[in-house]
Amino acid sequence: MAKVGVVLAGCGVYDGSEIHEAVISLLALDRAGAEICCVAPNGPQMHVVNHLTGEVSEGESRNILVEAARIARGKIADLVGVSAADFDAIVIPGGFGAAKNLCDFAVKGPDCCVHPEVARLIREMVVAGKPVGAICIAPALLAAILGEDQKSPEVTIGTDSGTAAALTAMGAKHVNCAVDDCVVDRRLKLVTTPAYMLAGSIAEAAQGIEKAIKTLLELVGH
Amino acid sequence: MAKVGVVLAGCGVYDGSEIHEAVISLLALDRAGAEICCVAPNGPQMHVVNHLTGEVSEGESRNILVEAARIARGKIADLVGVSAADFDAIVIPGGFGAAKNLCDFAVKGPDCCVHPEVARLIREMVVAGKPVGAICIAPALLAAILGEDQKSPEVTIGTDSGTAAALTAMGAKHVNCAVDDCVVDRRLKLVTTPAYMLAGSIAEAAQGIEKAIKTLLELVGH
Repeated sequence: MAKVGVVLAGCGVYDGSEIHEAVISLLALDRAGAEICCVAPNGPQMHVVNHLTGEVSEGESRNILVEAARIARGKIADLVGVSAADFDAIVIPGGFGAAKNLCDFAVKGPDCCVHPEVARLIREMVVAGKPVGAICIAPALLAAILGEDQKSPEVTIGTDSGTAAALTAMGAKHVNCAVDDCVVDRRLKLVTTPAYMLAGSIAEAAQGIEKAIKTLLELVGH
Repeated sequence: MAKVGVVLAGCGVYDGSEIHEAVISLLALDRAGAEICCVAPNGPQMHVVNHLTGEVSEGESRNILVEAARIARGKIADLVGVSAADFDAIVIPGGFGAAKNLCDFAVKGPDCCVHPEVARLIREMVVAGKPVGAICIAPALLAAILGEDQKSPEVTIGTDSGTAAALTAMGAKHVNCAVDDCVVDRRLKLVTTPAYMLAGSIAEAAQGIEKAIKTLLELVGH
């Protein structure tokens, strides 16, 4: 049974993990018989967004780990306490939290910094030859870290040319990808899929995520 | 294409809608080709629970509709503005929010009061002969409202004898049900499934929910 870490970034598309992408990932992993371990950084979110109005909720503060625990039904660990030795693979769902809390790509684009614990875990996984999945905008994390390491990761965020150019500027090779498909970098064992970067509905997002999770698990142990 | 209202109660198992149950419902509805309209009451949650510790977050207040908007990706309407005329069916996911924000069953058991707008919509649906689905603990709402109306609704919350007795005390007929199954009251067009009242994993919860959504949509127009 593969043990898979799911790296969460809060709870909600505009300031945390995209909830549908996270839950579809958990369901696909559980149905495939994987053991799931949710993890998240323990620290403040970049900000809190009112998801009804889309506006920043001024003066409000929420903790990434505490909010991510909502998606994990309380069963979640602080990212600081885990390493690649704990997992056979990891998955990073999308949502703005991946680009606001796990790194600051949403604000700084190609000049972004990645959360040090997120960078550490991703580097450990790649060095250990263990697969990493990233959904929606989360491949920006792989571009930032593995681009910096001169590893030329091959990833997708769908077809958005502006975002693709930013990933290329960070040292990644961007490959356009349809919503129901995923891109596989077999050398670095990376699996990425556009999900809500392209999806017009939850069923569309699920098609690509389910394919990505299946592919990720096939890479475990290969 | 059936138009289905999904009645949310916040965002998180301990103080809102159970996120997995809500997302699995949305996915099953979308895959079946239904048009989805998320709705929630606009008002304060009973309380806010820290999902990492399980403890009430004293002094913190969140709005049911605003938090439910996280699950709906911002596409959600105030319950006060919708009626049975807007839907062919409705679904109410579980989580403590169903028993804390949509009614106060979690605190008062069989003496609970139901949120007036929730009660109104459920009564309108039943009078109009339109199907109502309820997941996990949400069937307590059907027991409270339709029991009060002397309609003897036939529902399930799984196999928990204490909860079942409370539903019976409110005038419902409780039927034990396995996690991968659902109970159908064909007279009142109610479909209920235990989900996380019994499920040990998200895949288990999905089995019953997917069956319930399929059954609910079959009842539309019959």
